[in-house]
Amino acid sequence: MTNRWIEETFHPHWRVALEASKVLHEDKTEHQHLVIFRNETWGTVLMLDGVCQLTTSDEFVYHEMMSHVPLTALESPERVLIVGGGDGGVLREVLKHSSVKKATMVEIDRTVIDTAVKYYPEIPGKSFDDPRADIVIADGLKYVAETDEEFDAIIVDSSEPIGPSAVLHTREFFADCKRALSKGGVLVTQNGLPFLFPDHLAGTTRVFASLFKRVAPYMCTQPCYFGGPFALNFATNDKSVLHVDEKTLAKRAKKRGVSGLKYWTPAVHNASFALPAYAQSVVDEAIAAGKAGNDTAYAHAPVEVKPADDKKKAAKAKAPAAAQPKASGSKKAKA
Amino acid sequence: MTNRWIEETFHPHWRVALEASKVLHEDKTEHQHLVIFRNETWGTVLMLDGVCQLTTSDEFVYHEMMSHVPLTALESPERVLIVGGGDGGVLREVLKHSSVKKATMVEIDRTVIDTAVKYYPEIPGKSFDDPRADIVIADGLKYVAETDEEFDAIIVDSSEPIGPSAVLHTREFFADCKRALSKGGVLVTQNGLPFLFPDHLAGTTRVFASLFKRVAPYMCTQPCYFGGPFALNFATNDKSVLHVDEKTLAKRAKKRGVSGLKYWTPAVHNASFALPAYAQSVVDEAIAAGKAGNDTAYAHAPVEVKPADDKKKAAKAKAPAAAQPKASGSKKAKA
Repeated sequence: MTNRWIEETFHPHWRVALEASKVLHEDKTEHQHLVIFRNETWGTVLMLDGVCQLTTSDEFVYHEMMSHVPLTALESPERVLIVGGGDGGVLREVLKHSSVKKATMVEIDRTVIDTAVKYYPEIPGKSFDDPRADIVIADGLKYVAETDEEFDAIIVDSSEPIGPSAVLHTREFFADCKRALSKGGVLVTQNGLPFLFPDHLAGTTRVFASLFKRVAPYMCTQPCYFGGPFALNFATNDKSVLHVDEKTLAKRAKKRGVSGLKYWTPAVHNASFALPAYAQSVVDEAIAAGKAGNDTAYAHAPVEVKPADDKKKAAKAKAPAAAQPKASGSKKAKA
Repeated sequence: MTNRWIEETFHPHWRVALEASKVLHEDKTEHQHLVIFRNETWGTVLMLDGVCQLTTSDEFVYHEMMSHVPLTALESPERVLIVGGGDGGVLREVLKHSSVKKATMVEIDRTVIDTAVKYYPEIPGKSFDDPRADIVIADGLKYVAETDEEFDAIIVDSSEPIGPSAVLHTREFFADCKRALSKGGVLVTQNGLPFLFPDHLAGTTRVFASLFKRVAPYMCTQPCYFGGPFALNFATNDKSVLHVDEKTLAKRAKKRGVSGLKYWTPAVHNASFALPAYAQSVVDEAIAAGKAGNDTAYAHAPVEVKPADDKKKAAKAKAPAAAQPKASGSKKAKA
């Protein structure tokens, strides 16, 4: 019997097909098509609506870089908020830091957690049972807007800015995140593949630049996110958390018992902020625009450009490119 | 009419298919299948024997990193040897350095050059007509073994270690390169995709470690080399050329008139040597093995392990993994 091949279909002019040696689960409704299968090269793969979201062979890249970069940047992070991230990968990495007293994961969809536990339990590992883990099934947008708590790090492990996840890429949401950060706290989110889709990186950078003193996108290469390196974004009001030297990063990781990593190292931490020139120019322009009052977030639907605080400055800042008609390179949608 | 889709077929369990809006050239013989076509996303694409070798949208990544890393590492590189590289991309970047008095490109196959000029002339640009360019149609292996010249940098822009290019990945060839380097010179080569094929990086690193005082693999992410970041390798006997500070790198590039780059920056230069932990562990092990006398190069065909100089040390060093039966992640094969 010939194995079935399952295709990524979101790029109009090129496709990646993965061989399914075994389909573990499939759910095809009028709203979504989710399929979980085994692949000889990639391990267990989650494909959602024709986009490869996650493989067990390389999930460590994204999950480590989303977690250890903000956490080791901080001297002693105690309270961490994860918005989304129901597969448990970020939670697993966050809990490696013994300084963390409470990690709150707010996932809107309980089935994302159940799916992980059933089909790729190595991703959450034992993190859902950790006494420091606070699992909340709720709308992350609403949670952040209403919470009275303060967090040292907020990690937004969201899917791409279309459909239900679009709200997690808006200025309003990021402004609420800022309010929920402790003094000197760090906000991290994902920004897709800037080689193919620079507008996503540009949009978040504009918003971050308008809200925070410091914005510092960083990158990692997740092999199953085909199409170039993957951008993450980092915002803070405390510039000291950027460019922490390698020795200090190593000391913090060691002191907190962080070990067994496959991607993050102190050298990789600082290196990840060195963007290829093509991405750096997107970021430079977006920061200038954001500081000048153009804080238009990336969106597929038409977005309203807010009136700038300073019209003179705003006139200098370029308007954002029109929302792309094609699918976003942002991945990490969740089942 | 529906467009034709052209597939990468060298990964057994996954495939990338690119839509050809127009096929520019196709050559299908019993020895090879070469096809050059236009793709809406990637520009002009060269696919050779089911492996995407080059696209005009992202060739700058590899060509810049192969050229500017060794050249700006040096105080004043004057003579550069490019082995292979008939598409002219490396030559184009090398010639951006005004310090370079002569750049010798030794390409075994004249049709590689002709193909570039005809189908993607933006890659060589005007470099083939530069008076400093010395284009030699010859076997690179033989050329390096016989040359009396000395080069400040040797850049091996070879295809993967199978077939005719396999000789450009052997200890013998690299030893000849070492002999042809000036004092303090730098040797650079490509090492494929270590996330999928760590043995290639390991093999070259063992050989470099056995031949040179310093080995320093570095990485870049070339979007069309699907499957993770791409490894390059760097060897020298002069440790001062590693970790040159950003200011010095910037000053050198500026002084030499290097501009218009889309990937390399001084920060990216140094950052590229920070390897993800999974690749660093491959490198650490390979360096230890190489220093201990295990200098087995990567090869698809079975390779003979040379007797170690120091049996005690060699016993500690792990034997290399068996040559992989599957295709190598090394790309950059040439038409």
